[in-house]
Amino acid sequence: MGKEITSRSQDYSQWYIDLVKKADLAENSDVRGCMVIKPYGYSIWEKMQQALDKMFKDSGHVNAYFPLFVPKSMFEAEEKNAEGFAKECAIVTHYRLKTDPNKKGKLMVDPDAKLDEELVVRPTSEAIIWSTYKRWIQSYRDLPLLINQWANVVRWEMRTRLFLRTAEFLWQEGHTAHATQQEAIRETEQMLNVYAEFAESFMAMPVIKGKKSEGERFPGAIDTYCIEAMMQDGKALQAGTSHFLGQNFANAFDVQFTNKEGKLEKVWGTSWGVSTRLIGALIMAHSDDDGLVLPPKLAPIHVVIVPIFKNEEEMKKISVQAELIAGTLRKLGYSVKFDNRETHKPGFKFAEYELKGVPVRIAIGPRDLENGTVEVARRDTKTKQVMPIDTVAEAIPALLENIQENIYQKALAFRAFMMTPVDSYEEFKTVLDTKGGFVLAHWDGTAETEASIKEETKATIRCIPLDAKAESGACVYSGKPSTKRVLFARAY
Amino acid sequence: MGKEITSRSQDYSQWYIDLVKKADLAENSDVRGCMVIKPYGYSIWEKMQQALDKMFKDSGHVNAYFPLFVPKSMFEAEEKNAEGFAKECAIVTHYRLKTDPNKKGKLMVDPDAKLDEELVVRPTSEAIIWSTYKRWIQSYRDLPLLINQWANVVRWEMRTRLFLRTAEFLWQEGHTAHATQQEAIRETEQMLNVYAEFAESFMAMPVIKGKKSEGERFPGAIDTYCIEAMMQDGKALQAGTSHFLGQNFANAFDVQFTNKEGKLEKVWGTSWGVSTRLIGALIMAHSDDDGLVLPPKLAPIHVVIVPIFKNEEEMKKISVQAELIAGTLRKLGYSVKFDNRETHKPGFKFAEYELKGVPVRIAIGPRDLENGTVEVARRDTKTKQVMPIDTVAEAIPALLENIQENIYQKALAFRAFMMTPVDSYEEFKTVLDTKGGFVLAHWDGTAETEASIKEETKATIRCIPLDAKAESGACVYSGKPSTKRVLFARAY
Repeated sequence: MGKEITSRSQDYSQWYIDLVKKADLAENSDVRGCMVIKPYGYSIWEKMQQALDKMFKDSGHVNAYFPLFVPKSMFEAEEKNAEGFAKECAIVTHYRLKTDPNKKGKLMVDPDAKLDEELVVRPTSEAIIWSTYKRWIQSYRDLPLLINQWANVVRWEMRTRLFLRTAEFLWQEGHTAHATQQEAIRETEQMLNVYAEFAESFMAMPVIKGKKSEGERFPGAIDTYCIEAMMQDGKALQAGTSHFLGQNFANAFDVQFTNKEGKLEKVWGTSWGVSTRLIGALIMAHSDDDGLVLPPKLAPIHVVIVPIFKNEEEMKKISVQAELIAGTLRKLGYSVKFDNRETHKPGFKFAEYELKGVPVRIAIGPRDLENGTVEVARRDTKTKQVMPIDTVAEAIPALLENIQENIYQKALAFRAFMMTPVDSYEEFKTVLDTKGGFVLAHWDGTAETEASIKEETKATIRCIPLDAKAESGACVYSGKPSTKRVLFARAY
Repeated sequence: MGKEITSRSQDYSQWYIDLVKKADLAENSDVRGCMVIKPYGYSIWEKMQQALDKMFKDSGHVNAYFPLFVPKSMFEAEEKNAEGFAKECAIVTHYRLKTDPNKKGKLMVDPDAKLDEELVVRPTSEAIIWSTYKRWIQSYRDLPLLINQWANVVRWEMRTRLFLRTAEFLWQEGHTAHATQQEAIRETEQMLNVYAEFAESFMAMPVIKGKKSEGERFPGAIDTYCIEAMMQDGKALQAGTSHFLGQNFANAFDVQFTNKEGKLEKVWGTSWGVSTRLIGALIMAHSDDDGLVLPPKLAPIHVVIVPIFKNEEEMKKISVQAELIAGTLRKLGYSVKFDNRETHKPGFKFAEYELKGVPVRIAIGPRDLENGTVEVARRDTKTKQVMPIDTVAEAIPALLENIQENIYQKALAFRAFMMTPVDSYEEFKTVLDTKGGFVLAHWDGTAETEASIKEETKATIRCIPLDAKAESGACVYSGKPSTKRVLFARAY
C-alpha cells in the first residue's frame, strides 16, 4: 500500500500529491482549481478549527458571518486591496439561467438577468466587513470589535496544488477595530503569537515570527506579520499572517468614532488568517515515504487496535481485551479505533494506518494474550515495544505526549540545520541550490534588490525576523550597509 | 429598551424584524438579499451546529467539503433539479477585474477573462457531489457513503427576510449513497427523525413529520419528507427536509456499483438539510414582546448575574458571592455572565437580558447578602423567587431543565390548539382567516385541487403526516373521495 507513494528523495512534489491522494485527504474536483476535501482530510481541519476557535475565544474574540459577495463599488473602495486581488477574482454577473431554445435539455445564462452591479466572490472580507463596521461603530464604547469568521474564499489562482494553493479554500479571518494605533498593533502581535503557539504546540511545527518586506505585504496593510515554517524539501511555507491595517480601511469606508473627549477619530484595524493550507504544511513538515505522520493533538484517530487472529475463538478473546483498552482510553478523551474487519489481513491494516498517520498502533495476538502483553508501535519513530496488557491504556497518554514532543523536536532540529547565514551572493546562491532552507543574509532594504534576487534565484524574503539581532553588515547583493539579517528562501 | 419592539399583536412581521435587530442577531447587508449574522445570532447557530453535528456523527456520518461552484453542464445534468433552481442562481462568468480606462480608480470586468463555461454558485450540492461520488463508488464495498457538509449556499430569492429567506444562507447538507432502495429510504427516515429530535429536544419546538405532496417536493427527489412547525402567528414553517432521491442522481451522473453477485447496479441516494432558517423559527416559536425566549439548550448564556449596589464596598461583597455562584455553574458546564458594568443600571441590564433571552437571571443586592438570599428570575414565565445564596447554584441545573421543558410544553399546547380538523371548504377558509394554524382536511390527492386551494387561500399542503389515520372522507374542495386528512396552512 505505502509502496504506491513516490519517495521524497525521488520526487518530493509527486510524493506530496501521492500522499494527499492515497491517504484520502483531498482530490481535485471537476471545477477548475477547486478541491474536494475528503472526510479524513476534513477531520484534520475540524481538529485545527476546534483548537484555533478556542484560542480565539479565550483571547476575547467572537464569531460572526458576513456575505460571500462584495459589490464591485465596495470592493474597489480600498484601492491597494482592490488592486491586489482584482486579477484573481470570480465575478458574478447574472442571477438566472433559462432554457436554451437551441439545445434541448440545456440551460443558458439569461441575458435579461444581468446584475446592475457585478458581485465579486470574496477573496478576503475587509471590504464587506469594514462597510458593516461603519454602521456598528459610533463611539469609543463600541470599540474594540474583536470578530472572527470561518468561511470559504475564492482566489482565481492559475497554478493550483491541493491544500497549498486552490481557487477556493477554507479559512478563518479575524477582523478587529480599535480606538488606538497602539492597541491595534498589540492585537496584530497577539494574533501572530496565537498562530505561532498553534503551529508549534498543535502542529508540532516550529515557526519563525517576522514582518514581511513592503513588497510581500498584504494589499491594504501597513504591516504584515507572518509565521514561516520549513518543509522537508528545504522550501519555506508561510503558515499564517496577521496584518496591521492602520486606518486604511477606516479611510476607505469612512469609519469614525467619537472618543472620550467627544472628538471624531478614524478607527484602527487589523486582520489575520490561516487556511486549509495548514493541512498541506502539516503533511510536508512531518510525513515520510510510508505515509502521514500526524502529531497526536491533530490526529483524528489517536490509537488503532489491530487484532491478530486465526479463528473466531481467538478473535473473541482479543475483542474483550481490545474493548477494555479502547474503553479506558475513550473515557480519557482519546479517539480509538478497533479494526476488527475480517476482510483484511493485519499487514494490510498496519500499512493502512501508517499511511493514515495514526500515532499509536496496538497489536494483540493469541500469544500476547497468553503472555499478558500487547505490541505497541509508534508511527513517528516506527519503533515497537511490548507492554503489559493490563496497564497499556494508562501508558498511552504519556506516550502520545512523547510522540507530540518528538515530532516537534525532530522538525526543530531539521529547521535549525536548515538555517544558514551567508555573507556573499555566491554563497547565497550555492546554499540555495545545494542545501536549500532559510538563508540569513544582509539586505539593503530596497525593493530593487529584493526583486533582483527573486528574479535571479527564485528566493524571496520570507520575513524580517522579530528577534533579528542588530548586526552591521553589507547587503549580499548590493554591498550597501545593513543592520540585520533577513530570512530568504524559496517558498511554497 | 424592550419598549422599542413592536408588539406581536400589533404587527407580527414588524415584531420579528425589530427583535432580530434589537437582540443583535442579524441585519441586512449592503449586498442584495444577503444578511450579516451578528455575533449573538451566530453563537446560537454555533450551538445548533454542535448539537446537530454530534447527532450526525453519532449516526455514522462524517463531514467533508465540496466546491462552491458547479459548472453549468454539471448543474444541468439532473434536469428536474436544474429546472428547479435555474431561476434563482448566481452565475460566475468572469475571473478577473481590470482598471477601468475611463474612470480613475475604478475597476471593470475584464472582457478577456470570460470563462469558457459559466459556473453556478451552488444553490444545493447534489450535482457537484454526485459527480464526485461517481469516482468514489465502484463496488458494494464502497457503500454506504454517509457524508455531511457545513456550507453556504446561494438562492437568488426576490423577497427576503432575515434568517427565513435570504439569498445566501448557511446550512448543512447530508448526501448519502446506498446499495439498496430500502436502505436509502431508511436513511431518509432516520435523518427526518434526527431533525425532529433536534427540533423538539433542543429547540423546544414541536414538529409534525410528514411527506410533501408532489408539487412541494425537492426538485430531483422521489419523495420529500419534512418537519413542520407552528409559529405564534398561526403560520407554519418548514424546519427541515429529508429527500429520498431514488436513482435520479445516479442516473444523471452514471453512478454504478458492482454488487456482491458481480452485477452492475445504479446507486440509491438521499439528501437532507437544515439551515440558519432555524434561527428564525426559534425566534418566532417562543419569543415575546419583551424579547427573545431561548430554550436553555441553545442559549449562548444560561445565567446572568446582576449586582445591585450603591457603592464600591457593596459591589465588592456582591462580587465575591457572584463569582462563587458563577464558578460552581461554570464547572458544571454552564455559561454564566456576571455583568459588573458600573455604567448601566440594574433596570437597564434586566431589560437587556430579557431582550437577549437569557433563561435565568440572578440579582444580588445588599439586603440579599444580609438575608443570605438571591432573587432568581426565569425568562420564560417572568416569575421570580427568592433562594438561599448558598444553594442557588445547585438548584440551577434543574431550573434550566424545567425551563426547557416548560417552553416546549407551552409550544406544544399552542400547536395542539392550532390544529383544526375541517370538513368543508367554507370552514377551511374561515379557520384560515380567523384562527390560522394547521387545518386538517381531506384532499383528493390531485395537483389541480392543491393549486386551486393555494390560489384561492394562500394555504399550501404542508405535509401528509406520517401518522395520519386512515379515515374515509371527501375532499373539502372537490368532494372526491379521500382516505386521510392532510395538513394545510399558510406558511413562511
